[in-house]
Amino acid sequence: MAAPDPIYELYYWPSIQGRGEFVRLVLEEAGVPYVDVARLPARQGGGAGAIVRILADEGGGMPPYAPPVLVAQHLRLAQTAAACRYVAEHHGLAPADEHERRRADALMLTVMDLVLEAHDVHHPVGGALYYEEQQAEALRRAPLFTGERMPKYLGYFERVLATNARGEGRALLGDELTYPDLALFQVVAGLSYAFPHAMAALAPLVPAVMALHAAVAERPRIAAYLASPRRLPFNEHGIFRHYPELDPPR
Amino acid sequence: MAAPDPIYELYYWPSIQGRGEFVRLVLEEAGVPYVDVARLPARQGGGAGAIVRILADEGGGMPPYAPPVLVAQHLRLAQTAAACRYVAEHHGLAPADEHERRRADALMLTVMDLVLEAHDVHHPVGGALYYEEQQAEALRRAPLFTGERMPKYLGYFERVLATNARGEGRALLGDELTYPDLALFQVVAGLSYAFPHAMAALAPLVPAVMALHAAVAERPRIAAYLASPRRLPFNEHGIFRHYPELDPPR
Repeated sequence: MAAPDPIYELYYWPSIQGRGEFVRLVLEEAGVPYVDVARLPARQGGGAGAIVRILADEGGGMPPYAPPVLVAQHLRLAQTAAACRYVAEHHGLAPADEHERRRADALMLTVMDLVLEAHDVHHPVGGALYYEEQQAEALRRAPLFTGERMPKYLGYFERVLATNARGEGRALLGDELTYPDLALFQVVAGLSYAFPHAMAALAPLVPAVMALHAAVAERPRIAAYLASPRRLPFNEHGIFRHYPELDPPR
Repeated sequence: MAAPDPIYELYYWPSIQGRGEFVRLVLEEAGVPYVDVARLPARQGGGAGAIVRILADEGGGMPPYAPPVLVAQHLRLAQTAAACRYVAEHHGLAPADEHERRRADALMLTVMDLVLEAHDVHHPVGGALYYEEQQAEALRRAPLFTGERMPKYLGYFERVLATNARGEGRALLGDELTYPDLALFQVVAGLSYAFPHAMAALAPLVPAVMALHAAVAERPRIAAYLASPRRLPFNEHGIFRHYPELDPPR
């Protein structure tokens, strides 16, 4: 049996999870065919050149700002949260009720705020400089992030899970998985990689968040994805980077 | 004639424009009645205490993470972009076509990314510290922001305006104002306040962005709002702060 035709294309840097991973997880859980274009060989139109080309393309309406870019029919959609929401709303991974859909939107944006703050721990001065050029500033920022921001964000998601009795700990909203659950899974995975000591200290305070992370990892499609070569390993070029000096033993 | 009953409540810090201003502008252009709750006297339930109370309230479903919080019927909705989109989609300030609505979503999130970067110029280490405690880091971040990030973001919006022939320079999407236009107005206003020298140098390179800013300011409802006491002045407690040392003459 031939594979079904891809209905989506994703354009994202081919060597990191980064923000693209949030879109990949929604596509994988939705079970829809997609092409991760930049991961194709350059001779098949892949590589980083594919991203440069789609950002520069002046045809087809409003240009996208930055990767990840999701292509669906004639739409080229940038912004991680917008791309995740598009796929989720078209494939049963967003709430049906309008108010719940709006809450999913807010939750997703809150996860993305945490993602940006995690990135800026190693890039507090600017993305145009290497980490090594802003390490002094990063050493100042890291304890504020692990000591105050991580507990505040993850404590909030813990409270959301406690408020949602219907979810029985398996869902932030309602009783079915929605796309913010996938995003929270990914941010817990990333923080656990980048800041293992801080997460070890924090995990007992946010048991429902940790249980949700474990439950998402066991979903059949996500488990298959995580075990596949499509899941890139974390590394020190992405958003979640493990620099031991930013996460000392406690 | 009595004023119509308010259909929205907004909860945001009463002494700054901040992120709440993006929601206020959509409410004002929509012409819908709303109460800016924290700006009421404390004896009428206002003041910063109102924000503390709504964040702590455990009733009514998922708690909001942080202000601004928009209250619409039984929905308490945090996240600036989500709140703006809610009002816009209910009151004719969002595109009707789905693909265009998704592009509006991505544009709004791109404006909000710029807003956060503008904030982090004066708070590169963390929000828990005063500016004066991270001024050395801010002095390093500021030239990267004004020299690279501002041109990149505003240059992108210039390109979007150039791509959208239907807008004739008055709209980022289609031929009618939508909520990202209001957000772009506000960010140009804020950057002009915070970084007047950088903006004076950049403005000639982004004439369509500057023209859109001027056109939004002249819309009857926005002009009336800007001239009213409801529009708070910029100051050095909000997102857009004018610290001369971060914006030297060129």
